[in-house]
Amino acid sequence: MEVVVGIDIGGTNTEYGFINREGEVLLSGKFNTLDFELAEKLVITLSDSIKNIISDSEYELKGIGIGVPNGNYYKGTVEYAANLKWHNYVPLVEMFQERFPDIKTVLTNDANAAAIGEKVFGAAKEMKHFVVLTLGTGLGAGIFINGMIYHGTDGFAGEIGHTIYDYEGRNCNCGRRGCLETYVSATGIKRTVAELISTTNIPSTLRDVPNAKLSGKLIEANAQAGDKLALKAFNFTAEILGKHLADVVAYLNPEAIFLLGGLSNAGDLLFKPVEFHLNQNLLYVFKNNVKVLPSGIDYGNAAIKGAAALAWSEVKI
Amino acid sequence: MEVVVGIDIGGTNTEYGFINREGEVLLSGKFNTLDFELAEKLVITLSDSIKNIISDSEYELKGIGIGVPNGNYYKGTVEYAANLKWHNYVPLVEMFQERFPDIKTVLTNDANAAAIGEKVFGAAKEMKHFVVLTLGTGLGAGIFINGMIYHGTDGFAGEIGHTIYDYEGRNCNCGRRGCLETYVSATGIKRTVAELISTTNIPSTLRDVPNAKLSGKLIEANAQAGDKLALKAFNFTAEILGKHLADVVAYLNPEAIFLLGGLSNAGDLLFKPVEFHLNQNLLYVFKNNVKVLPSGIDYGNAAIKGAAALAWSEVKI
Repeated sequence: MEVVVGIDIGGTNTEYGFINREGEVLLSGKFNTLDFELAEKLVITLSDSIKNIISDSEYELKGIGIGVPNGNYYKGTVEYAANLKWHNYVPLVEMFQERFPDIKTVLTNDANAAAIGEKVFGAAKEMKHFVVLTLGTGLGAGIFINGMIYHGTDGFAGEIGHTIYDYEGRNCNCGRRGCLETYVSATGIKRTVAELISTTNIPSTLRDVPNAKLSGKLIEANAQAGDKLALKAFNFTAEILGKHLADVVAYLNPEAIFLLGGLSNAGDLLFKPVEFHLNQNLLYVFKNNVKVLPSGIDYGNAAIKGAAALAWSEVKI
Repeated sequence: MEVVVGIDIGGTNTEYGFINREGEVLLSGKFNTLDFELAEKLVITLSDSIKNIISDSEYELKGIGIGVPNGNYYKGTVEYAANLKWHNYVPLVEMFQERFPDIKTVLTNDANAAAIGEKVFGAAKEMKHFVVLTLGTGLGAGIFINGMIYHGTDGFAGEIGHTIYDYEGRNCNCGRRGCLETYVSATGIKRTVAELISTTNIPSTLRDVPNAKLSGKLIEANAQAGDKLALKAFNFTAEILGKHLADVVAYLNPEAIFLLGGLSNAGDLLFKPVEFHLNQNLLYVFKNNVKVLPSGIDYGNAAIKGAAALAWSEVKI
């Protein structure tokens, strides 16, 4: 059976899946990314796993697709990935190609891969223009234009997480201030909880949690349980995202904006106020004319399916 | 000789030109837009002029292209054009097609037309991804992606003038606050002069000019003559534009950003500080990797040549 391997390298986990043309995950596995100090070690471990599985099965490997933060489609490299503890320049495609010389390996950043997954296997099959935002440790974006992922001149289009929400705002890892992802991401909502702890008297069990132990999941669980401070943190995050999505729409006039990963798992807790603030802030020509949607891909598989969709899209039939 | 007519309808003037495939303006004319209370009257006057010229010449009319604020390429309409005193819904293409049933008429907004002109006849011939900003009464934008103008889902992509610079900022005609065009446009710099008159003690001849008599041109002339308040107004405008262009680059990763029309005629007075502030504010992966350029089309003809380029691009050979 013809398959590709879709690999999602994240700041925490690295997952891979053997995926057929229909998008079915036939087999999958997971590593802890932080166990590998060097990219090379991770590549060796992944390659060995893939080779073992291939030799023990009837899979015919047609391609390898990789989604990774700061991945550059044109160059096949990962550069300056703040959440990976690697060197500043990792030629990841080359490293795979050494081990799989006859197999096409393709790479892009994780948000682009997610967007390609949404187009090929998810809820964007019929859409020409749409935007996917991944709300993980940071905020990534993949932009579809005329039915194709848009890479830009150097492969870095879609850095929406690093557009500015507030020029006098929070310090960002990128060295600037007020980037959207310092507010709208798992890291952003943790900072918001810290801000609300300092600026309000709202009682909350989160006051008993050291900041380093806070996580998007924990804040979500508390919000779902009715914790007022956690709820306020979600509303604050959603308001900023909704306002900023009005800019995304003004730039790109997409048919839909997908919110994926991390914070998006909070469902209505995030989507309802985001939709409200988006429609409040839209320019009149766009009013009520853009959808905010969750992923159409089964929970937990969006990233590897996206990477697989990237690989399939470059396999010659 | 085969020609198209390029028409640029602006808030002040309506210009038209008979333009050949090489982009030469063979003949041109001009009306005062405000003399025509109804769009229909303007269409009649323009059509009669075009017909008269055709019948007196050896021109073979192959198409009509129109650039107009709030023009919608998909629908051939002008909707809610704040700077035109027409109805809220003007089916302009239909009105031309009634008078020229055998000629293809195409319409888009003025900034898209300018971008198409830059691609076909100007300095963007070799570029795939670029952005054109028109700094007139308002701020318009045309986005080229993969060598084609990008219209978006409903024909309204590129409303960069209505992305937000400051959520608590100046009131905008669109009903919201802090839109980029309330700062960066002829109207914006007039407001900045008024702000500087109120907030500073800087001496200036502009203090003797009633606000309603101020214009971008007058402010530019004073800045060129060394007026400190006018210079400060230009620097303030350029700083905001430079900062915001860092966002444009983060979204689109273009090869170049063109600044056209109105304020851009100030040359170095605008371009130098814009480039400085852009590079100060760019995300590291984009540093020194994007050009800010003036139009490559001869002064005064960019708008009608853009409209003509639009028409030529849809004429079958």
